[in-house]
Amino acid sequence: MIIDDMATSSPTRQRRRGHDPESVLSIAVGVFNERGYDGTSMEDLARALGVTKSAIYYHVPGKEQLLARALDRALDGLFEMVTDERALSGAAIDRLEWVVRQSVRILVDRLPYVTLLLRVRGNSRTERAALERRREFDRFISGLVKEAAEEGSIRADVDPGLVTRLLFGSVNSITEWYQPARGASADALSDALLKMTFDGLRSGVA
Amino acid sequence: MIIDDMATSSPTRQRRRGHDPESVLSIAVGVFNERGYDGTSMEDLARALGVTKSAIYYHVPGKEQLLARALDRALDGLFEMVTDERALSGAAIDRLEWVVRQSVRILVDRLPYVTLLLRVRGNSRTERAALERRREFDRFISGLVKEAAEEGSIRADVDPGLVTRLLFGSVNSITEWYQPARGASADALSDALLKMTFDGLRSGVA
Repeated sequence: MIIDDMATSSPTRQRRRGHDPESVLSIAVGVFNERGYDGTSMEDLARALGVTKSAIYYHVPGKEQLLARALDRALDGLFEMVTDERALSGAAIDRLEWVVRQSVRILVDRLPYVTLLLRVRGNSRTERAALERRREFDRFISGLVKEAAEEGSIRADVDPGLVTRLLFGSVNSITEWYQPARGASADALSDALLKMTFDGLRSGVA
Repeated sequence: MIIDDMATSSPTRQRRRGHDPESVLSIAVGVFNERGYDGTSMEDLARALGVTKSAIYYHVPGKEQLLARALDRALDGLFEMVTDERALSGAAIDRLEWVVRQSVRILVDRLPYVTLLLRVRGNSRTERAALERRREFDRFISGLVKEAAEEGSIRADVDPGLVTRLLFGSVNSITEWYQPARGASADALSDALLKMTFDGLRSGVA
């Protein structure tokens, strides 16, 4: 799926020779997701970029710097969201709903970057910094779930931390199975997700 | 978390010398989950088992054979469940609820094995066979969701395939964050999950 995605936006052979930073990043993230960050060598990146092993350092100062830029692309999206007015004022349940919907959108729009973020294990300083920002994001969501329970708009009989993990488990799973080319739109995905988790699957009829 | 888990049930130094097949499997799965299956060498396994590089073949005929046994442990649990009477007769919504609850239990009871299964990418015959069985399992669940929608017990305005993926996205996420030593019980996890997805988070009060 990631390969398809890259193929769609693939630069022509000519452009492969003269990469701009954006296409270098996009191609590198594809390789990281395919082989795993730890399993990717500078040689793998050179091959994917179609440049020689010695030319790769002209394009890429180092693997970790690319990783940092890629993870920032995912994290910046998430942090722009949680500092948006719509995440900060109003009824907690409306803010939570908006945040879930936006998270799905960010995930779909920045799919390879969020996929990479969700696979980070913490083997380098860059990864540990990203994990710390992820935890900060999780705390924000967990706080929002707690506020919604306190205002009485969502059920209070489930631990807010557990709700956060199960809810975002469902959101994040999208990176595992979503196929941009023939998948549902971000809106259709978040509609389905919100119906299931906010209103519940049970019809109450039968 | 996997390391903690292994440490808890870790054989003593003495037992490490004379491994039974069960402890070999358990230790190998820990290494696969830690390093990734593709990234694990026979030398890594020998080191984890505390045996020499030449002695490893006495314990382990090959990496892929261990993988097959480990994946079977996860898949056999899932397939025993979907061939159980409780998955096959009665109202579809009750069967679905039972299957979700049992899935959470299998996941918690066989955590390292299910974790490994969920990370399989299909690079070998064993992995492709496991992926095929996973797809078969997914089709069973998707069929159950469809039946429940048809009997009118769950909402019919969301695609059953999408519900299956989002619902099991939440179930499967447990492998990403569950900490057996200090986590909730399997029952507490499935209670929370079923409340959220079947009845919904919204209280309908505020």
